[in-house]
Amino acid sequence: MTDTLKLFPAGIDTYRQPVVYMHEDCHICRAEGFAAQTPVRIDLRNRWVIATLNVVERGGWLDIDKAALSASAWSALAAQTGDVARFSHPEPPASTSSIRAKAYGARLTRPDFAAIVGDTLDNRLSDLDLAAFITACAGDRLNATETVALTQAMQAAGETLDWGGRVILDKHCVGGLPGNRTTPLVVAIVAAAGETIPKTSSRAITSPAGTADTMEVMAPVRLDERDLRRVVEAEGGCVIWGGALNLSPADDHFIRIERPLDFDSTGQLVASVLSKKAAAGASHVLIDMPVGPTAKVRSPEAGAALSARLRHVGEAIGLRLAIHLSDGTAPVGRGIGPALEAADVLAVLRREANAPPDLRARALDLAGQLLDLAPGAVAGSGRARAEALLDGGAAETKFLAICAAQGGFREPDEAPQRIEIRASSEGTVSAIDNRVIARIAKLAGAPRQKTAGVRLGVRLGDRVSKGQPLYEIHAATSGEAEWARTYAERHEDALVVTEESR
Amino acid sequence: MTDTLKLFPAGIDTYRQPVVYMHEDCHICRAEGFAAQTPVRIDLRNRWVIATLNVVERGGWLDIDKAALSASAWSALAAQTGDVARFSHPEPPASTSSIRAKAYGARLTRPDFAAIVGDTLDNRLSDLDLAAFITACAGDRLNATETVALTQAMQAAGETLDWGGRVILDKHCVGGLPGNRTTPLVVAIVAAAGETIPKTSSRAITSPAGTADTMEVMAPVRLDERDLRRVVEAEGGCVIWGGALNLSPADDHFIRIERPLDFDSTGQLVASVLSKKAAAGASHVLIDMPVGPTAKVRSPEAGAALSARLRHVGEAIGLRLAIHLSDGTAPVGRGIGPALEAADVLAVLRREANAPPDLRARALDLAGQLLDLAPGAVAGSGRARAEALLDGGAAETKFLAICAAQGGFREPDEAPQRIEIRASSEGTVSAIDNRVIARIAKLAGAPRQKTAGVRLGVRLGDRVSKGQPLYEIHAATSGEAEWARTYAERHEDALVVTEESR
Repeated sequence: MTDTLKLFPAGIDTYRQPVVYMHEDCHICRAEGFAAQTPVRIDLRNRWVIATLNVVERGGWLDIDKAALSASAWSALAAQTGDVARFSHPEPPASTSSIRAKAYGARLTRPDFAAIVGDTLDNRLSDLDLAAFITACAGDRLNATETVALTQAMQAAGETLDWGGRVILDKHCVGGLPGNRTTPLVVAIVAAAGETIPKTSSRAITSPAGTADTMEVMAPVRLDERDLRRVVEAEGGCVIWGGALNLSPADDHFIRIERPLDFDSTGQLVASVLSKKAAAGASHVLIDMPVGPTAKVRSPEAGAALSARLRHVGEAIGLRLAIHLSDGTAPVGRGIGPALEAADVLAVLRREANAPPDLRARALDLAGQLLDLAPGAVAGSGRARAEALLDGGAAETKFLAICAAQGGFREPDEAPQRIEIRASSEGTVSAIDNRVIARIAKLAGAPRQKTAGVRLGVRLGDRVSKGQPLYEIHAATSGEAEWARTYAERHEDALVVTEESR
Repeated sequence: MTDTLKLFPAGIDTYRQPVVYMHEDCHICRAEGFAAQTPVRIDLRNRWVIATLNVVERGGWLDIDKAALSASAWSALAAQTGDVARFSHPEPPASTSSIRAKAYGARLTRPDFAAIVGDTLDNRLSDLDLAAFITACAGDRLNATETVALTQAMQAAGETLDWGGRVILDKHCVGGLPGNRTTPLVVAIVAAAGETIPKTSSRAITSPAGTADTMEVMAPVRLDERDLRRVVEAEGGCVIWGGALNLSPADDHFIRIERPLDFDSTGQLVASVLSKKAAAGASHVLIDMPVGPTAKVRSPEAGAALSARLRHVGEAIGLRLAIHLSDGTAPVGRGIGPALEAADVLAVLRREANAPPDLRARALDLAGQLLDLAPGAVAGSGRARAEALLDGGAAETKFLAICAAQGGFREPDEAPQRIEIRASSEGTVSAIDNRVIARIAKLAGAPRQKTAGVRLGVRLGDRVSKGQPLYEIHAATSGEAEWARTYAERHEDALVVTEESR
């Protein structure tokens, strides 16, 4: 009895979930007892993948002696049409017992986490297993020791960039504040100051735009390690997507599950951030942490707890950390969404009159604090240096040089569909709900659609008249624009206008 | 712009996950911004379903103006080929915020659980959401108040059988002990005693056989409410699959996720059991709880905690409960797997010389305790009554009558593939690991393959010689038999033979 079938592409995109389609009467299904949704191991040459079985009924589009693969399974195997692959039951992954133990409240060790990370990278764990792992660690269910262990396991599973003992600066924002797109500005200023800041960024997890999404509007961000080094040697800095570098590669798998679940955890957040920073070869890292009732970090107490965990893990893995607690009560800048945020960044760099002053101020604070963190800096001098580099145009010049080195600068596009949301009464803008605004931007298509998002027309404390535009929904398609509008009209709490009673 | 497409069946079985296949260039994908794995709402006449989008690449098997549905989505919509359905973004289900809150450790209320149960039944929650819910409740993360609320929400979401105030006896085993197939015996004895015991059973969740799987080997178990009442009015008892009756219907959805995750929780276990018992109209319920280091309940302390939770919830929802703590150190009977367990049941009913004495004793204990629980019973008389009914043949007669009323009795089949696992040394059988034995039975194909499983040849404490058969793997296919053997040979701890040192 042979356990092989000929492969061909199913032409079905199941996002990252590998799926194999087999005929219900196929000899392997019968012999092995495979049934729908069974995990199946497929070996081809020196590659293998665990795919979920979907069974194609007789009389359908699939021949009995063939197996069709989803796009993700096809690329994981680097298959060619007609390749003959071997099919078998996957061994039960040992790490599921650790996930189960964690769900029941047990403490895990570094070998436990290493096994989970390894099985994740091997596609041995199902999406349900990963969802269970994420949930079992949610909130504060990973303690400090576990967080160190997870961080180290995640870093060790991928590459670590070696910068030969140089001082490498880095920054990271823990997110939760729409439009807080300071990274391109900080990198431009710090690199203009002569420091080294090879910034690898991520795409959005649960927000309308990640730094890589925003930067990609202005320059290519998919660089390999060789190109990254070339850009950094030439310009001192870069802003690229870290996903192509295999730095803490399990993180992307966890993010794939966290994104639809729309939650993460203190421990996983810290492990995600610091495993990537350590893998990128950073020596000195500034963490930007916006705190506000609708930001990711909602209270000073939560900020203090997260800071303590970051410091503990940073120290344990040899990173010098500074933490910048900032105001997270309202979005920063005007745009929320990749292209809209890029436009804000460029306005600041170009010192345009209508550049968002809050974004400018934040970028200068962060760049200044990062310059102060570098060895040999004169304490407290960073802010003034940063301001001089921005106002003198050195930061703009450096940013354009970085974009050129990454593959060429381009201006952001604008969205074809726009809908204005207007004030239903006159009064004062008394509250902006970051989460609702972010949700509207996501429903409009961000970050998938680069030009989609929300552009704020007013700020906290502004006086508005009835009918005045409060914000504008930007979308690539009319369907998405309408969908976001429907949600926006049901959520007037997105932007609260309080009528004066006097 | 129209938001409709013509439907046809994809001929793809994705088990219970509804999937819709759409052409990447289809106008709805473009207008709505649908991308792979997006949830899509499909409306057809008065039905609707939320399906996961899989995108079919251009040049594939799908026309641009059509949408293909997986078997589960097709049946949920009761679709006919060529039906024109409407496609839209699903509203974000409100209950995801409750799931997130629970993951973070919050307490949920009955309305929260009702919303989760409702969205589950409407297929609004993704499998990842459900996995997060199961995990967020794992271990003891639901307290007593939450467990009552979940139980009531689950019961209220389905039908409740009305027996007009009659005394209705019921029993349930919390599982975890392979081969513990007492239910058909208890029903036969209790119905033979003249009591009413309309038993609805489930299929296996994480075990090699559920009672419904085992009973189905001997008689049809898919009965609707009308047939259930007919059988019970005629014979006083039945053993049917509860899944067709819409009793606590969310339970099956949770089970679909718990099964691959291979874990559940105290609260969800209690809610699952008692919501079904209440919905079946039971007034007096005996809970069989095997306790042992490799059973589902591992220690007397865990048994006490689960008993307390069951009593608390039972009292809150008006059920009279008795709990039977039993020995869970080793499998009961010889067979593990549907047909093998059915053979043990029949051997006891027929008073065969080689009938497993432990299964017989357990069934008599449980039947006796349940007869004692009935109003008007002479305390302590149940065990002797049960024994008389079994030994006199009344239970066998009653069981065959019940099977006939359910649609006809049949003898269990035997598996075509068998592999003996032999002792590698002489000594004494000092331990049997229920979990490993159950795993071997599942790898052999149980419960999917009715004849598959494990047949034990020895019992705890038996002396064995080198090469003596310890147990036999039964399988429907050679692939499954080999797979189970490979695992068994790597796990000698399934059945430990200790060599004498004297």
